Amino acid sequence: MTMKLAAFCLIFASFLAALFVAASGKPAAETLKEADRTAIVAVLTTQQNDWNKGDIRGFMAGYWNSSELTFAGTRGFTRGWQPVMARYEKNYSDKAAMGTLDFQELELRSLGPDSALVLGKWHVQRQAGDIGGIFTLVFQRFPGGWRIVHDHTTQSPPETK
Amino acid sequence: MTMKLAAFCLIFASFLAALFVAASGKPAAETLKEADRTAIVAVLTTQQNDWNKGDIRGFMAGYWNSSELTFAGTRGFTRGWQPVMARYEKNYSDKAAMGTLDFQELELRSLGPDSALVLGKWHVQRQAGDIGGIFTLVFQRFPGGWRIVHDHTTQSPPETK
Repeated sequence: MTMKLAAFCLIFASFLAALFVAASGKPAAETLKEADRTAIVAVLTTQQNDWNKGDIRGFMAGYWNSSELTFAGTRGFTRGWQPVMARYEKNYSDKAAMGTLDFQELELRSLGPDSALVLGKWHVQRQAGDIGGIFTLVFQRFPGGWRIVHDHTTQSPPETK
Repeated sequence: MTMKLAAFCLIFASFLAALFVAASGKPAAETLKEADRTAIVAVLTTQQNDWNKGDIRGFMAGYWNSSELTFAGTRGFTRGWQPVMARYEKNYSDKAAMGTLDFQELELRSLGPDSALVLGKWHVQRQAGDIGGIFTLVFQRFPGGWRIVHDHTTQSPPETK
C-alpha cells in the first residue's frame, strides 16, 4: 500500500512538472550562466575601450575571425571578418569620426549551451554630431572564448526637434 | 609492444583530432538538421501566405506568443507579442498597405540543439510603392514547434536612380 502510494505520488508529481513546463511555454534553452554573462560583457567592454582608443583592429577581436561572420547594416549584409573591418574603416576613417562609443541597456539571453543573444543600444558622441541606434548580436562560444558571429546594427534616424 | 604501439597510435590520433578542431575554429553548435530546416522554412512560408491574405494575426502565429518576444526596428525595440502585432497593424492598416510580401535568400544556421539564426531579405510589392530590406531572426524550438523569439528588421533606404 505504501509502495503504491509512493508510486502514485511520483507519477502525479511528474504530471504536475510536465504541465508546468508546457504552460510556461519557455524555450528549451536554459538561463545564461553568470560566468558566461560576465565573459560576454567583458568582450563588449573591451570592444568599447578599443574603439575609444581609435583601435578598430582591437575592436574587431570581439568578432569571430571567419569568412562566415555576418554583419547586417542599413544597406545589406557584409560577409567575412576582413570585409566587416573594411566597412568600419571606411565609415570611421579616423579617431574624430570614431568619437566615443558607449553601449547601453545590454540585455543577454541564452540560446543554448554555447550561444547567446545580446540586445542593446549604441551611442557615438563626436564633434561632427552624435549618432546612435540599436543592435542585435549573436554570440557563440569558441575554444578561445565568446565571439560575435552575427551583428545586426541599425542607426536611428535623426531626432526631430 | 603491439599494445604500446596501439596506445601510441590512439594518443597521436586524439592529438591530431584536437588540433583539427582547434584550427577549424568552428562554433560548438552543430549543423542545422534537415527536419529543423524544413520546419523553420515552413513557419516563414506560412507567415508569407498569411500576410498575403491580409491576415496579420495568422502572420503573428510565427512569433513566440510571450511578453518576452522582442522586435528591433528602425525606431527601437518593441517588447511582447501584443505590442509587436499592434505595431504591424499600425504600419500596415489594410490589405493594400500590406501588399505582397516575399522572403528571399534565406540563410539558416544552427545555434545549438534548440536555436537557429535566419538571415534574409524581405520585399513588399504594393501600389503605393515597393519597400524592402533585410532581417535577422532568432528561432527557438518549443513543444509546439519553432517560433521567432527575436526579430531585427531593417528597411532599406530608397534606391537612388
